[in-house]
Amino acid sequence: MKTATVLLTGFEPFGGETINPSWEAVRRLDGWTAPGLRVVAGLLPCEFGAARDALEVLIERHRPQCLIAVGQAGKRTEICVERVAINVDDARIPDNAGRQPIDTPVAPDGPTAYFATLPIKAIVHRLREAGIPAAVSQTAGTFVCNHVFYAAMHAAAQRSSGGGAMRAGFIHIPYLPEQAARHDGAASLPLDLVVQALQLAAQECLRTGADLREGGGQID
Amino acid sequence: MKTATVLLTGFEPFGGETINPSWEAVRRLDGWTAPGLRVVAGLLPCEFGAARDALEVLIERHRPQCLIAVGQAGKRTEICVERVAINVDDARIPDNAGRQPIDTPVAPDGPTAYFATLPIKAIVHRLREAGIPAAVSQTAGTFVCNHVFYAAMHAAAQRSSGGGAMRAGFIHIPYLPEQAARHDGAASLPLDLVVQALQLAAQECLRTGADLREGGGQID
Amino acid sequence: MKTATVLLTGFEPFGGETINPSWEAVRRLDGWTAPGLRVVAGLLPCEFGAARDALEVLIERHRPQCLIAVGQAGKRTEICVERVAINVDDARIPDNAGRQPIDTPVAPDGPTAYFATLPIKAIVHRLREAGIPAAVSQTAGTFVCNHVFYAAMHAAAQRSSGGGAMRAGFIHIPYLPEQAARHDGAASLPLDLVVQALQLAAQECLRTGADLREGGGQID
Amino acid sequence: MKTATVLLTGFEPFGGETINPSWEAVRRLDGWTAPGLRVVAGLLPCEFGAARDALEVLIERHRPQCLIAVGQAGKRTEICVERVAINVDDARIPDNAGRQPIDTPVAPDGPTAYFATLPIKAIVHRLREAGIPAAVSQTAGTFVCNHVFYAAMHAAAQRSSGGGAMRAGFIHIPYLPEQAARHDGAASLPLDLVVQALQLAAQECLRTGADLREGGGQID
Repeated sequence: MKTATVLLTGFEPFGGETINPSWEAVRRLDGWTAPGLRVVAGLLPCEFGAARDALEVLIERHRPQCLIAVGQAGKRTEICVERVAINVDDARIPDNAGRQPIDTPVAPDGPTAYFATLPIKAIVHRLREAGIPAAVSQTAGTFVCNHVFYAAMHAAAQRSSGGGAMRAGFIHIPYLPEQAARHDGAASLPLDLVVQALQLAAQECLRTGADLREGGGQID
Repeated sequence: MKTATVLLTGFEPFGGETINPSWEAVRRLDGWTAPGLRVVAGLLPCEFGAARDALEVLIERHRPQCLIAVGQAGKRTEICVERVAINVDDARIPDNAGRQPIDTPVAPDGPTAYFATLPIKAIVHRLREAGIPAAVSQTAGTFVCNHVFYAAMHAAAQRSSGGGAMRAGFIHIPYLPEQAARHDGAASLPLDLVVQALQLAAQECLRTGADLREGGGQID
Repeated sequence: MKTATVLLTGFEPFGGETINPSWEAVRRLDGWTAPGLRVVAGLLPCEFGAARDALEVLIERHRPQCLIAVGQAGKRTEICVERVAINVDDARIPDNAGRQPIDTPVAPDGPTAYFATLPIKAIVHRLREAGIPAAVSQTAGTFVCNHVFYAAMHAAAQRSSGGGAMRAGFIHIPYLPEQAARHDGAASLPLDLVVQALQLAAQECLRTGADLREGGGQID
Repeated sequence: MKTATVLLTGFEPFGGETINPSWEAVRRLDGWTAPGLRVVAGLLPCEFGAARDALEVLIERHRPQCLIAVGQAGKRTEICVERVAINVDDARIPDNAGRQPIDTPVAPDGPTAYFATLPIKAIVHRLREAGIPAAVSQTAGTFVCNHVFYAAMHAAAQRSSGGGAMRAGFIHIPYLPEQAARHDGAASLPLDLVVQALQLAAQECLRTGADLREGGGQID
């Protein structure tokens, strides 16, 4: 069996934080292997455009079979496996380059949205089974996380038509406890649990073809 | 000037409620007129498929220039103008016909998503100016509300290519106070404020062409 | 039957607001009468010490049989009838005079806490019955609201031993819609509903002796 | 220097859970020592009355200089150091013996409330410094946690007048991740962080006399 490459990406810190839990977790998995897979970790700037460009370089270089972009979501309590990337940038705060786009497309030539091609239900199922709080999320927001998620799916769609299929998606993670300690009422998950969650997610992508048919919706 | 028809739809009660604030508000506006517009109200069942079919009949009959579907969102605190409809049904609870689809498309032949073609930023701006709590929402969920929202946009896309353009979108509203009185900690908005919000939204659709470029995003 | 005087107090605006819904509601009830009761409304400054002094002057002047102090609680969704006032000032923001006490007692000679002597369960029951979202609250915070609540109970305890019994308590109310329209995600209740809630609460105080034995607790 | 005994108590599972994180954390600290202190761990039933009786037996047996009762708070995101215990039982769900008291006192002869005598601000400060999310909480609810908290303070007050002073208080902790994995949207903290938090709290009780004057209040 050929070893699959799983590209995990994390972000630089933003919004006044000095660390970004996504990169803290992802960088610990650089070079990690499990039967049939090998992880490559990549760091993305928290900037519209530059993040997308950096992602495309990483995809070009590593030609992964699976891409999981990871980002910090300071208001979440759980590992959130995102369902859908939408073709819009609408920034509530400036990115790390000071840009704050409003209602501009990520890719002017792209469709309105892409569904993640990761087995999102199977991943959530596997994480919960392992005792890790997790849920399907119906929105990745409209900031740099969604931007990268959309760019990943757009790249995957283009590669797919060109041959080398790539499953792709996005996972939002809460603050680390040491970050939450500086934000009143913020939830958190510890780094080792997030690392374990990403290991399980990566394995699930290789192991599961058609996704589980298990509820993961939201009423409103 | 020709008078534009604005079709407003509301839902039957669901989830154990005896009323649905969307229909309570919408039915009060049946026949309401303002300079250049006239409202027609329609009731939809809270059922996958049947709601879409009923909506299509209403569109066919009234051939509206503008369609605003309205639905109850019991966990929201504000009038939520939805940005995007996604092509998936994933029901956390059974609909009123007992059906609970998981990860099936609303329209097998449709795109992954549609953006609302209402001027969502202008509507939120106008409501806030009028002292009504309002926000852009990045997800309409995956239940019957999103189903109808998607069906509305799909119908609009098909009519648009066929001639008669129709702006369309979806607005989620909180419980009424009398509903919230039976749910611990639930927020609410009173009926008259919701009715006023829908009047303003309908007028804004006629008045505003290109949407305002005003932030309405979400970080994560 | 002698007509009972019900003293309702509201606060000046604070925390950057230009109105305070507590005073907006209370002042509309000044002079309101119902069988057996007459309301007197009083305005309190949002200042530690000065609010207590102003309250004592109002009590001395009106010698009410019932005192309901009302305050704004911007994070609440419902009418919150407070259970307990505690003998501490611990201010997260400065009051309107710029003072920000930390862990100082409201009354150095007072007990640790007082339970409200209003029939809090009966009031919540009555409001819900009338379709108004309401709940018992286990904390009035540690800012000027709790300060006034404690001062009210302390004054009631002293008057009670001296003769003229006075039932007293505190009700927290959410933002008005026009305030919530300027705060992302904030809940609200409309003024007329708050006014109605205070009318019902005042009547309940006169009508109900021993409180209802109905659950109104909180697990943690 | 004499070694101080710190009694930590945890609860049996309740509310459908199979574990209680308070006991999971506390039992790991049984016999733990640090300079000047030794921990004794005790298990309490989640029952009104029986929990208080078991606590009194533990106090009598170990005659601790410091008592920290610990309980699960499934809706919290942080370590919550409680400020005040109130003299009321008001149960939203039955306890483990099926009893559901409404508005009955914990101790018919006791005062309305006790403030914790732990240095609550110093503990929160110390935990945050160590990167552990923590906050002062203004209510311990009205279920068995508050019952035990009140009973602890009442016992401390009685021992204090009789000689052997005992500092006492209550700390609420969130779910463990494996519990949160079964509750949509629930926050959690991992066991090792909770254990570390309790170690730091115990040490702070011995080290700090008069509490820090640092804000820890709540506006409403």
